[in-house]
Amino acid sequence: MGPHPAVAAIRLAVRRVLHDVLNDLARTPAAPSESTPTTLALADRPLVLAACSGGADSMALASALAFEARKLDVRAGAVTVDHGLQNGSTARALDVVHRLRDLGLDPVEALGVTVGRQGGPEAAARDARYAALDAAATKLGAAAVLLGHTRDDQAETVLLALARGSGTRSLSGMAAVSGPGGRYRRPFLLLDRETTRKACIAQGIDVWEDPHNADPAYTRARVRHEALPVLEKSLGRGVVASLARTAQLFRDDADALDQWAAAAAREAAVDGDPDEALDPDKLFPLPSAVRRRVLRRAAIMAGSPAGSLFSRHIEETDRLITGWRGQGPINLPGGVEARRSNGRLVFRRTTAAE
Amino acid sequence: MGPHPAVAAIRLAVRRVLHDVLNDLARTPAAPSESTPTTLALADRPLVLAACSGGADSMALASALAFEARKLDVRAGAVTVDHGLQNGSTARALDVVHRLRDLGLDPVEALGVTVGRQGGPEAAARDARYAALDAAATKLGAAAVLLGHTRDDQAETVLLALARGSGTRSLSGMAAVSGPGGRYRRPFLLLDRETTRKACIAQGIDVWEDPHNADPAYTRARVRHEALPVLEKSLGRGVVASLARTAQLFRDDADALDQWAAAAAREAAVDGDPDEALDPDKLFPLPSAVRRRVLRRAAIMAGSPAGSLFSRHIEETDRLITGWRGQGPINLPGGVEARRSNGRLVFRRTTAAE
Repeated sequence: MGPHPAVAAIRLAVRRVLHDVLNDLARTPAAPSESTPTTLALADRPLVLAACSGGADSMALASALAFEARKLDVRAGAVTVDHGLQNGSTARALDVVHRLRDLGLDPVEALGVTVGRQGGPEAAARDARYAALDAAATKLGAAAVLLGHTRDDQAETVLLALARGSGTRSLSGMAAVSGPGGRYRRPFLLLDRETTRKACIAQGIDVWEDPHNADPAYTRARVRHEALPVLEKSLGRGVVASLARTAQLFRDDADALDQWAAAAAREAAVDGDPDEALDPDKLFPLPSAVRRRVLRRAAIMAGSPAGSLFSRHIEETDRLITGWRGQGPINLPGGVEARRSNGRLVFRRTTAAE
Repeated sequence: MGPHPAVAAIRLAVRRVLHDVLNDLARTPAAPSESTPTTLALADRPLVLAACSGGADSMALASALAFEARKLDVRAGAVTVDHGLQNGSTARALDVVHRLRDLGLDPVEALGVTVGRQGGPEAAARDARYAALDAAATKLGAAAVLLGHTRDDQAETVLLALARGSGTRSLSGMAAVSGPGGRYRRPFLLLDRETTRKACIAQGIDVWEDPHNADPAYTRARVRHEALPVLEKSLGRGVVASLARTAQLFRDDADALDQWAAAAAREAAVDGDPDEALDPDKLFPLPSAVRRRVLRRAAIMAGSPAGSLFSRHIEETDRLITGWRGQGPINLPGGVEARRSNGRLVFRRTTAAE
């Protein structure tokens, strides 16, 4: 008798990602070894970490990683982040560490972080979490860090981006591979949360839900517990799958348009200009979706923070091209100005911003 | 004292569109007149129709059209569609006709239609409605037909497309200008429904809500009365505006990608090939978002109905390029097959489908 279908599903998803990680390592050998043994000594095997909160998604991930790593030349470890936001969170984190060790993972570490306030509570917690994961992965020499995000998380991400009126890039949600050198991998992006829950039950694994996940003060919790259930009731059970599928289409669209914008920016560069100026006459005939991406890119390269550049900034800058009537420079976030003069469009940081 | 702000808003929106219509007419003179009088004789003035259901959106539209047309060289008329789906719908339509005439519109016509069943009740009613509007516009010689869709309708359209997992094009919602020769215009696409309601109240105009709008058997009604209110509660009041803004970004993206796909299709055409074959080697290096659009376009040109072509069809066809291992032809809707042979990719209707 094989494993429970949910257990089979999570293992298959993790196995595929481990194969990808090993293939990527094989293509970029980090340190050439003197011999090439068919089985690596334990210490030489690449380390893959599961990032684990103790919830169903990430406990399922850790269990599948422990199981699959044994069959491959991979060491399986895990980290859990203690955000320090609730009483008892440290005891909680230690409990998760014990449960991860019980699954056979080694090393397992609890990472304490201090959550700031920038960008709101959710963004601040996320920033602190990824900084800790990055540091731990580097310290432990991990080849990859697996994250337990499911298709449901993806649908929530798309819905949150929609609510902000963001463009195609934000709507493309979370990538299966991301971070420096493709360090982060999300094996469960096509699985639903329910499958991870069933897999934990089938394997007798206790799970612990992060109380933030149900705290209506958090926008994502409201999307999860209010918005998506009502959308499913109004529009049918396929909504989560549709949102996740849409995210992939957006990602492909955004990739193609970024490629076009990069080529258009090279094409419009004024040769040998010390300010890296763009030729507005070459930008004018481009479709607006491409032109706006060229302008956004130029503003960011000049020092405008991507998160503060809103579409109204780009639209105003675009009018230097499409509605040129001699207007003055446009002030952009980060002390950057976009100025058109002598048939050149220049983005640069003004001294006033220093 | 000027008009109520809601009344001013609907009039401004209609005035802008009427100016656009007149500008477009000036660029394409239909029948040259012998003289160019500064004021046209009534019968010579272009006719603009409001499509009116009797609800707040379209009664506000009709009232603003009546008001603004008097100040321009425009005749203002209206049509209302009797879908014949409820008892008393014909009496209802006649009542709307009377109220439109009371606003000073002329001509005003009720258009009876027979709603089929194809594509579900909402799609069938929409198809019948546009067919009737097209016929009436042609018969009356209208320069434009104004539609009362608001920003709320746009948000609902985007949400419905999302629920279907549609691509960027469907998510771009309704266009401000659409139909043959840009006949249909939507002046209220940036106004919210509440403004149209207030404008009717301020002008003492009775409105009648289509009972379908509140009938939960209709998906759009569920989106309007269940999904959007909960989304606004979970994500904030800006959701409707965000969805509408996102629709515009999607439209720009889709336009740019369609332009690229058209150029790529020309580039990949096998010169002088009687089957209008494409060269798979030229399609291979394209970004997948562009390649899929080229394939979709080719399938539609070969006779596949756009509404039946799903992403799985296009993905399977795409594997003739990206995963070529000698596989056989792919069957597409409408009896079209995509076949790769002798280094050519050919889409054609097979005799079996005749």
